[in-house]
Amino acid sequence: MTAGRVATVAPIAEAEATGKVAAIYADIKATKKIDFVPNMWRVLATNADHLELVWTRLKALMHPETVGRTSRLDPTTREIIALAVSATNGCAYCVNSHTAALRKLGTDVETLGEVLAIVGMFSSTNALADAYQIEPDILPPL
Amino acid sequence: MTAGRVATVAPIAEAEATGKVAAIYADIKATKKIDFVPNMWRVLATNADHLELVWTRLKALMHPETVGRTSRLDPTTREIIALAVSATNGCAYCVNSHTAALRKLGTDVETLGEVLAIVGMFSSTNALADAYQIEPDILPPL
Amino acid sequence: MTAGRVATVAPIAEAEATGKVAAIYADIKATKKIDFVPNMWRVLATNADHLELVWTRLKALMHPETVGRTSRLDPTTREIIALAVSATNGCAYCVNSHTAALRKLGTDVETLGEVLAIVGMFSSTNALADAYQIEPDILPPL
Amino acid sequence: MTAGRVATVAPIAEAEATGKVAAIYADIKATKKIDFVPNMWRVLATNADHLELVWTRLKALMHPETVGRTSRLDPTTREIIALAVSATNGCAYCVNSHTAALRKLGTDVETLGEVLAIVGMFSSTNALADAYQIEPDILPPL
Amino acid sequence: MTAGRVATVAPIAEAEATGKVAAIYADIKATKKIDFVPNMWRVLATNADHLELVWTRLKALMHPETVGRTSRLDPTTREIIALAVSATNGCAYCVNSHTAALRKLGTDVETLGEVLAIVGMFSSTNALADAYQIEPDILPPL
Amino acid sequence: MTAGRVATVAPIAEAEATGKVAAIYADIKATKKIDFVPNMWRVLATNADHLELVWTRLKALMHPETVGRTSRLDPTTREIIALAVSATNGCAYCVNSHTAALRKLGTDVETLGEVLAIVGMFSSTNALADAYQIEPDILPPL
Repeated sequence: MTAGRVATVAPIAEAEATGKVAAIYADIKATKKIDFVPNMWRVLATNADHLELVWTRLKALMHPETVGRTSRLDPTTREIIALAVSATNGCAYCVNSHTAALRKLGTDVETLGEVLAIVGMFSSTNALADAYQIEPDILPPL
Repeated sequence: MTAGRVATVAPIAEAEATGKVAAIYADIKATKKIDFVPNMWRVLATNADHLELVWTRLKALMHPETVGRTSRLDPTTREIIALAVSATNGCAYCVNSHTAALRKLGTDVETLGEVLAIVGMFSSTNALADAYQIEPDILPPL
Repeated sequence: MTAGRVATVAPIAEAEATGKVAAIYADIKATKKIDFVPNMWRVLATNADHLELVWTRLKALMHPETVGRTSRLDPTTREIIALAVSATNGCAYCVNSHTAALRKLGTDVETLGEVLAIVGMFSSTNALADAYQIEPDILPPL
Repeated sequence: MTAGRVATVAPIAEAEATGKVAAIYADIKATKKIDFVPNMWRVLATNADHLELVWTRLKALMHPETVGRTSRLDPTTREIIALAVSATNGCAYCVNSHTAALRKLGTDVETLGEVLAIVGMFSSTNALADAYQIEPDILPPL
Repeated sequence: MTAGRVATVAPIAEAEATGKVAAIYADIKATKKIDFVPNMWRVLATNADHLELVWTRLKALMHPETVGRTSRLDPTTREIIALAVSATNGCAYCVNSHTAALRKLGTDVETLGEVLAIVGMFSSTNALADAYQIEPDILPPL
Repeated sequence: MTAGRVATVAPIAEAEATGKVAAIYADIKATKKIDFVPNMWRVLATNADHLELVWTRLKALMHPETVGRTSRLDPTTREIIALAVSATNGCAYCVNSHTAALRKLGTDVETLGEVLAIVGMFSSTNALADAYQIEPDILPPL
């Protein structure tokens, strides 16, 4: 009556990784200060070019200090955006991953509740605005 | 060759509003410190009960000080969440509205760009995590 | 500063339609008791096989009496489902089309408001259930 | 090779609930005439204010008689809307919950099939209308 | 802490199928050259009319040669479209099903990675285009 | 009664572009063999780092020969994937842009119709698979 998620490809284990993949695995662990390679990266590694494209961009945006970039947002705000997007898309892996990241940054369960209350509310107003095809209040662009 | 958005109902103008609707219109303008009632609320007013339910919740979450509640998030973070949700849902009215709110709070065009860069990136990883049906890295709940 | 929707193909006008397309246009007008062919069908007509596949299915489900089928749902409930789906998907054309259909069936603006209030609320709880990855309450299948 | 859904927070058990949360738990069971608190509410209870905001709105819309409101829609239609939204959003918890509610209201498996056939068909036409950027058939608003 | 997917209806086993359902089951196995009826069809069979409507359309589009139709696309391209749509919708069943179909057609893991890299990238640009409400570059329709 | 899309930021015109932005504008025109910079890039240019991150990734995936990479997919298949994703997300700008690209590659209106027929059909089966929470047919990963 119940069945789980069924992965579509076999992830590349750390022990199997060589060359570019091994180097990126090492960079992921060092950059994120974790001692394992999350499933996301081990799956993307089935196409090494793709792994590199995704990691390069994520590193630049979420770990800007490692590439000499200055972010205008603090790390918690960046993870809140990631969680809001993931919840809106209903992406299970991503919701788990970004909730874990927020908690590591010190977000408690009540604050998480407030973030998600806002996510939930605007999911509602989004549906209503589309449902009524409400015209934008005209404002000059930024 | 081009046609615009077609509203499905006629909004209730401020001059037409009476009773509960008029009271909520006044509260919206006072709470948001604006001198007009945005289209969203004028459309919801076609069902006064619904207008009240949506406004009560939005006021509690986005203007907590007006109901004696203390938020764990600052106003800019709250609007960033709203924008991230709206962009992910592709809701035109909402994107315009929350971009305008952010700009009123002092967000400049480059910071907006960084917020949206993160929105865009995680839209991508969300699609990938779902596309590969990647298994969550198991972590205990918060 | 504003630009409209840009159609990607040129619709087939009624006067241009021949053969299978002309026959389906006539059937659409007769079945729906309208005196024009809505844009949706004129666009689908750019691939006549596709037009036929979509129209056949829609006719069976939304106009069951014309194919000798008995529906378990009344016409208003069927259009409410169509509107709920369209609003959730944020499909502009579809929201307009199904709102128009509901109104032709006698739905007034307050009832529309209640339908959409429910659509909006569950958009919110959907986002929350996904955001927390809430486990289903286990129940035996229907 | 398979892994399940991983909840992100620990729900508040009924035995642990106190104050506002305990009162809402009791109200949920009485209003819905069930003898357990569904997971949704036990998870939302991790932020008591949020639990209250969501329950208040859901109660007003889905159990209008308990707050002295008259609904223009019958209970089955209200749950059909909830299911249509949940299916469109692909929300697993919500699909299970609203299917269970419909079945409690007497909906059989064939009627469920017809509801979902309509959901499925308009998911298709929604994608097509967006894919072709079909212009709305212009109609005056409701 | 983990729970799986909970089916909402009991599928119709092959041994239970009679009449129209049995005939369609046989056609599915013959058309797809497989020796079992996938869960999708066994669930749709709970409403035999619905089963027929979905199967007829899918057969015409995905197995055109069986209905004397000539497709302008090759089978791998058709499955790639199916996978791109399914990944974008985050539909677990569908992602598994269409990945399996692609692999049967000879797609290897690196090519799958490239398909999904493109899916992931345009999920990102889609979110950005909506987030900024970028105006279409005006081009005449096809 | 109708209103268009309202851009949220002012795009950077070609004449205004300097430094990194000007160089990317030139690269976009050369790589895509077009004589104007599409709105997408002129808007992203409001945050030059973001423009670079998006362009680098798109160039690598969609114009692989310009970076010495060999693609396993032909250009038309790559654009079909882009269109399928864009239609599924309902992204107006993106649908227009990728339809234009396909047409430049020689896709005619009937082939476009077949692509979209498949997009539309699987939007439908996706909704159904989620609506019934159909369990995956268990298959070993690729």
